[in-house]
Amino acid sequence: MDSIKILVINGPNLNLLGVREKNIYGSLNLEEMNKKIQEEFKHSNVEIEFFQSNMEGEIITKIGNSIGNFSGIVINPGAYSHYSIGILDAIRSIDIPVVEVHLTNIYNREEYRRKSVTAEGCKGIISGFGYYGYIMAIHALLDSILNNN
Amino acid sequence: MDSIKILVINGPNLNLLGVREKNIYGSLNLEEMNKKIQEEFKHSNVEIEFFQSNMEGEIITKIGNSIGNFSGIVINPGAYSHYSIGILDAIRSIDIPVVEVHLTNIYNREEYRRKSVTAEGCKGIISGFGYYGYIMAIHALLDSILNNN
Amino acid sequence: MDSIKILVINGPNLNLLGVREKNIYGSLNLEEMNKKIQEEFKHSNVEIEFFQSNMEGEIITKIGNSIGNFSGIVINPGAYSHYSIGILDAIRSIDIPVVEVHLTNIYNREEYRRKSVTAEGCKGIISGFGYYGYIMAIHALLDSILNNN
Amino acid sequence: MDSIKILVINGPNLNLLGVREKNIYGSLNLEEMNKKIQEEFKHSNVEIEFFQSNMEGEIITKIGNSIGNFSGIVINPGAYSHYSIGILDAIRSIDIPVVEVHLTNIYNREEYRRKSVTAEGCKGIISGFGYYGYIMAIHALLDSILNNN
Amino acid sequence: MDSIKILVINGPNLNLLGVREKNIYGSLNLEEMNKKIQEEFKHSNVEIEFFQSNMEGEIITKIGNSIGNFSGIVINPGAYSHYSIGILDAIRSIDIPVVEVHLTNIYNREEYRRKSVTAEGCKGIISGFGYYGYIMAIHALLDSILNNN
Amino acid sequence: MDSIKILVINGPNLNLLGVREKNIYGSLNLEEMNKKIQEEFKHSNVEIEFFQSNMEGEIITKIGNSIGNFSGIVINPGAYSHYSIGILDAIRSIDIPVVEVHLTNIYNREEYRRKSVTAEGCKGIISGFGYYGYIMAIHALLDSILNNN
Amino acid sequence: MDSIKILVINGPNLNLLGVREKNIYGSLNLEEMNKKIQEEFKHSNVEIEFFQSNMEGEIITKIGNSIGNFSGIVINPGAYSHYSIGILDAIRSIDIPVVEVHLTNIYNREEYRRKSVTAEGCKGIISGFGYYGYIMAIHALLDSILNNN
Amino acid sequence: MDSIKILVINGPNLNLLGVREKNIYGSLNLEEMNKKIQEEFKHSNVEIEFFQSNMEGEIITKIGNSIGNFSGIVINPGAYSHYSIGILDAIRSIDIPVVEVHLTNIYNREEYRRKSVTAEGCKGIISGFGYYGYIMAIHALLDSILNNN
Amino acid sequence: MDSIKILVINGPNLNLLGVREKNIYGSLNLEEMNKKIQEEFKHSNVEIEFFQSNMEGEIITKIGNSIGNFSGIVINPGAYSHYSIGILDAIRSIDIPVVEVHLTNIYNREEYRRKSVTAEGCKGIISGFGYYGYIMAIHALLDSILNNN
Amino acid sequence: MDSIKILVINGPNLNLLGVREKNIYGSLNLEEMNKKIQEEFKHSNVEIEFFQSNMEGEIITKIGNSIGNFSGIVINPGAYSHYSIGILDAIRSIDIPVVEVHLTNIYNREEYRRKSVTAEGCKGIISGFGYYGYIMAIHALLDSILNNN
Amino acid sequence: MDSIKILVINGPNLNLLGVREKNIYGSLNLEEMNKKIQEEFKHSNVEIEFFQSNMEGEIITKIGNSIGNFSGIVINPGAYSHYSIGILDAIRSIDIPVVEVHLTNIYNREEYRRKSVTAEGCKGIISGFGYYGYIMAIHALLDSILNNN
Amino acid sequence: MDSIKILVINGPNLNLLGVREKNIYGSLNLEEMNKKIQEEFKHSNVEIEFFQSNMEGEIITKIGNSIGNFSGIVINPGAYSHYSIGILDAIRSIDIPVVEVHLTNIYNREEYRRKSVTAEGCKGIISGFGYYGYIMAIHALLDSILNNN
Repeated sequence: MDSIKILVINGPNLNLLGVREKNIYGSLNLEEMNKKIQEEFKHSNVEIEFFQSNMEGEIITKIGNSIGNFSGIVINPGAYSHYSIGILDAIRSIDIPVVEVHLTNIYNREEYRRKSVTAEGCKGIISGFGYYGYIMAIHALLDSILNNN
Repeated sequence: MDSIKILVINGPNLNLLGVREKNIYGSLNLEEMNKKIQEEFKHSNVEIEFFQSNMEGEIITKIGNSIGNFSGIVINPGAYSHYSIGILDAIRSIDIPVVEVHLTNIYNREEYRRKSVTAEGCKGIISGFGYYGYIMAIHALLDSILNNN
Repeated sequence: MDSIKILVINGPNLNLLGVREKNIYGSLNLEEMNKKIQEEFKHSNVEIEFFQSNMEGEIITKIGNSIGNFSGIVINPGAYSHYSIGILDAIRSIDIPVVEVHLTNIYNREEYRRKSVTAEGCKGIISGFGYYGYIMAIHALLDSILNNN
Repeated sequence: MDSIKILVINGPNLNLLGVREKNIYGSLNLEEMNKKIQEEFKHSNVEIEFFQSNMEGEIITKIGNSIGNFSGIVINPGAYSHYSIGILDAIRSIDIPVVEVHLTNIYNREEYRRKSVTAEGCKGIISGFGYYGYIMAIHALLDSILNNN
Repeated sequence: MDSIKILVINGPNLNLLGVREKNIYGSLNLEEMNKKIQEEFKHSNVEIEFFQSNMEGEIITKIGNSIGNFSGIVINPGAYSHYSIGILDAIRSIDIPVVEVHLTNIYNREEYRRKSVTAEGCKGIISGFGYYGYIMAIHALLDSILNNN
Repeated sequence: MDSIKILVINGPNLNLLGVREKNIYGSLNLEEMNKKIQEEFKHSNVEIEFFQSNMEGEIITKIGNSIGNFSGIVINPGAYSHYSIGILDAIRSIDIPVVEVHLTNIYNREEYRRKSVTAEGCKGIISGFGYYGYIMAIHALLDSILNNN
Repeated sequence: MDSIKILVINGPNLNLLGVREKNIYGSLNLEEMNKKIQEEFKHSNVEIEFFQSNMEGEIITKIGNSIGNFSGIVINPGAYSHYSIGILDAIRSIDIPVVEVHLTNIYNREEYRRKSVTAEGCKGIISGFGYYGYIMAIHALLDSILNNN
Repeated sequence: MDSIKILVINGPNLNLLGVREKNIYGSLNLEEMNKKIQEEFKHSNVEIEFFQSNMEGEIITKIGNSIGNFSGIVINPGAYSHYSIGILDAIRSIDIPVVEVHLTNIYNREEYRRKSVTAEGCKGIISGFGYYGYIMAIHALLDSILNNN
Repeated sequence: MDSIKILVINGPNLNLLGVREKNIYGSLNLEEMNKKIQEEFKHSNVEIEFFQSNMEGEIITKIGNSIGNFSGIVINPGAYSHYSIGILDAIRSIDIPVVEVHLTNIYNREEYRRKSVTAEGCKGIISGFGYYGYIMAIHALLDSILNNN
Repeated sequence: MDSIKILVINGPNLNLLGVREKNIYGSLNLEEMNKKIQEEFKHSNVEIEFFQSNMEGEIITKIGNSIGNFSGIVINPGAYSHYSIGILDAIRSIDIPVVEVHLTNIYNREEYRRKSVTAEGCKGIISGFGYYGYIMAIHALLDSILNNN
Repeated sequence: MDSIKILVINGPNLNLLGVREKNIYGSLNLEEMNKKIQEEFKHSNVEIEFFQSNMEGEIITKIGNSIGNFSGIVINPGAYSHYSIGILDAIRSIDIPVVEVHLTNIYNREEYRRKSVTAEGCKGIISGFGYYGYIMAIHALLDSILNNN
Repeated sequence: MDSIKILVINGPNLNLLGVREKNIYGSLNLEEMNKKIQEEFKHSNVEIEFFQSNMEGEIITKIGNSIGNFSGIVINPGAYSHYSIGILDAIRSIDIPVVEVHLTNIYNREEYRRKSVTAEGCKGIISGFGYYGYIMAIHALLDSILNNN
């Protein structure tokens, strides 16, 4: 059986994980977090590619280029969630299920973090579970791909 | 080892699942959905209690009474998510992690469904994965309870 | 010919009709009003059931339970008209025409009474004709059921 | 017994009925609709005059001139409902009961159709029952005129 | 001299007093608080009935049923203060002075707690004095009843 | 010396003056009011033309046609004041001073009457002095024309 | 015949007239302006007192103290027009007609100058006619006092 | 080959072109502008009818009457663009492509000119190119009609 | 035992009490009201100083100067409640409990009176009980000072 | 004669044309579209350079660098139209006419697509004509450059 | 060389510096702060006058009187920054550069402190640097006065 | 003594300084401006690195990478100030004081330039002093670093 390829996109400032406002985002850095996610799926036939960029345009390009290369996308658009119609358009342009993840519960933050512009184009959203949210998102994508729902 | 007790609360109109707007909410009815969730955890030491009510006040009471009886709560407050400060207050009044679940992606619905008043008091929110979201929520609660994060 | 069963639902504070702000709502009490409505259809094959509740949840339940039991519903959701997405969802969940009635003209009242959240799910709305509005609503339901429009 | 004279005013674009967006407004044209309304009251002593205009100012004039000539007015101000303070002022200037009618349920349309500026001056509003709404409106006017309420 | 009967209504989550967010609401539980209020008036001819409910509809019903049974009402509608037009309508439906009480100063809380929908129908509002506010409210009712102002 | 020609425009429903909501607009009818204004200037070399229309478009046309024919315009755009960008554009299109008049104080009326869209293009606005406001407006125009300010 | 006493109040920054933004407010200083107004009424039995203050509170006090001393007040509240509920309350507290004057047309200025909070309590408002507006205002007051309207 | 008939509608105040605010709208008058447009298509089989009205209702009527008479419409609704739901409804009522044109770039004008209510029903909008915009609009209509897109 | 010193501040227009809008504020004048308050505490060891000013700045100064001189403050900021961030800052600058009082129920007045900017810095607010509210406020301050809550 | 150099800028996701939401944007891909535009001007002395980027910053840089290199710019800023003040500033920074183009009619899309931030700096906007809009834009630029208007 | 005279104005509650919310505003009192500022410029030919008032009107007057007496003004309008159009008008009335200073970063405070009404009339604003901001402001004024920019 | 390293970041379009809207931003180009800033500190032990980018993401990256390399940052985020939550997050992620600078007074510009999203994370903001603002910002950083406040 062919492996299922999943793309995990992390947006702006997530490269600073473990350094940035630890009381909010925790002390795990991005590499460590990715390793933990990888670990979880090492015995499954899931292949995960990790991508991080601070550039709105690079994220748009990466999403556009995922056509034909991935079966599902997990995205944490960081701050871009709150205003990037461009990323929303990219998500809508492809025919691949996308799940949005946030480390923190955006409903328990500043007013301007409570809305997600990008989530409008996603299959679903998972918010508030730290790195575990990425694992949940991949499980949800697999459930969706395998059971076709 | 003691079992971990989880309370699953379903709010207004979820008793009509499988009947109600199937194109939006799917054809599984509430009993069937609960059975599927139960199934998922039958080999674990998780004990699940299901509760459904159309009454805002009964849901508030149930949450208040959960103190000392449950280790975690999964709640789908249905329409009450969008305006019940009363349920939000109940969630904040207890010292038990609560995860909010929505069958559909609320960010892809009418404007008035895009905000959740109740999620402000929750650990996190999972939206858009149908009945599978409840399973994810219980996994997230277990992860939180066992790893104490 | 079988009789046509119509459910008339009255929401919060309508039990106080004839007592409550008479200059606005008139001096007829609920029982008297229901009798007058009944009277109007005594020679037709219309069977009317009256239901009043101050509880948002009970109204939701009643609407959900109407499936298979009624051919049409007349509802005066009272104050809940202005904020109950829960009742709106219930109305949308069933496949029965619902007509919303208000005793007073809501467009000639306080700002917050001028919008109806629940009417979004109804076939139509009749507002400003006192008890006569209920009679009009039943006529409209009959016209709709018999002429299939 | 003298006949009761009722004026039925139809506003902008209602001359295109039966041509215009049939999926929304139905396939009956204005003349056919008026005939159906007329028919309903042919055995009563109600005399109906029909007036249609696309001109806000002509409608205002017609309402002003109705003083002394009509006992009641049914008005479908069409698009003007949503912004014509001028028609509202005309309705308030006369001492004749006016009932506002809409073919469709304005609460189930675009946001900008959900408010009625003109209804503020009316006795009541009937919305969502197609041509039958006009008949209901006339019945309501008669009930009001005869029972003096 | 006949005793003056006062009804004290506590709304949603007030049953959790002493458990719920103690840093905000204090450590007195509802029973203890009621006892303290009772105490204050034990030598006066005031008879106090305490009622608590999490149900919007039950509170509406209780208010409606107070006609003829009480000379004054003290109400802490809890979260319902901020959105229940239904409770506002109930307060307006009766001819008994009602005083609204909040344990905390609602003007020093979250934005959505700064407005009170229900207070519009009350004689006055007292906010920020803990259980002492209830005592003040009863004194104010007595002053109003006895001095007829 | 040539006479100074002034155009007085009255907008929608002002033809009903003396009939319409007398408690608000007074009992003088339009003809009587015009006569009183005329009287005031009978010994001056001011020539006044009176124009009334319920039609937004006719008022626009009249304003456009005033070029070369009048030295000043007094306008009471009635309800159109509050939304007619069309009349505002007409006022701006001509090089003649225009003074806006309202019989009542629009700042003491409904919220939607407190703003004037058309006044943005006028020299000034006079509101709240009944028919006397027209006389003041003409005096102001004369002062402006004669003293060139 | 007794003289009629009129109080003219000028608010903040009007002491800088003739110095301040001349392109907007003209080159006449306050003293010169007052003299021109005085002149206009020198042959009538009108006695005018001029008062200028930059202090919101002093203006409130002056208005309150006018009871029994003046038959009418002309006020240009300057910037306070746009936010002083305190001056509005003062105007409402007295039983003397007040006319609000603005040198410029406030509808043709910045957005925040287009509303007048204080005008809500006045008989009327005159805006856009420079110093001549004060003269108009006094004429309007005289008309109102003498003709009792 | 039959000629293609195009209707060009100009709304309020466009009769004043060349007179009105020349710094904004240019010095060409309406007749001259129409001639220039005509000229452009004199060698093609396009027949152009020009219509100008200041009346919202006449424009609505003209649009309604275009059914069967024209293959495409170019409309500059002038000020009505910003508030006429009536013209929007008319545009939607017919099955003929409509292109909206503005002489100026409405995005570079006052806030209230930046939205177009009527454009919602049009095929497209062209704004900011003076009279040349009309020529572009006709080319666009031809392209659409001939290539059926 | 030392006496407890309480400062009672009354803001703008309260000097007009008994004269000003009596149907709203009652017929007691300020001096009479103060005497009634004084009376209530004549047998207690409470010393009350009364201060009234129409000046926002004087009230700010008085609050600032209260440090070390008073144990509690009762303030009725009148109209300033609705916009004076300056008075709010003063209240926050001192370490003395402040209770805000309003004669009328501000929730039952014009929209702009329903919010209190100044109350954000106070211990609590009492609104709607006429002069009796001041007595309640002093009792509340005493309760707070003596019981240290 | 020198050729006229035009720069055509396409923003985010336009690289996905022909793949992305074809029902909305059509099936032509970007290369094909550019070829069609090129074709149109092959016999004229217009030289067109095409540029596409998903990066807001690259688009800003490209616009800045166009000084001295191009005589006109056609830009479709895609999603950036709705929020990029940065691109607006770039457009304003250069002294070259810019025309904004949208493939679809933005007035007939989601609410957040109806406003264009970037168009404020442009000569004009063309929206709703598919690839033909680019051709129109170039014609408009040529008309503007050659006729100097 | 003549000395350059600078006026430093401190608004409401700044007299309480060093007492008031020290965690926000620091422990330096006003006198100490002024001394530090004075110190900084003791060897330059700058003469500084300090003025503090809690009165909006006194600040307006002081600004107006500065004409001819000062070459530059530093102002910390305190709470008045957020609503005093009166002070804004005063700043605009004079022809002297004014720099606004805030001790704290107003963008990092409550929502209502994030806007400055008064800054609209100033040369610039400096916010967040404590007493050092005043020194920066004077340097900026000197740079502006000496270099004439 | 080690030198203090300061990073100066200039955002979008600042590369066009001296070219772009000179009446607003002045005629100094970026290189010249940087030289002037450098000059100011040539005798101090301050080392300044200049960085300019039009890319939101590059600015985010640069800020993130400053950890350990700089003691302070001066940033002019240009247009990104008004919407980039991403840059705000970056500023908050690092433990280095950041001062925001704007060449012009943003409170005296278009409405959408009056708020700064990024300033929320900064120590302070300096706006309106041209290139001199950068010098002030570095002085403020030095004052903060050396005096540890």
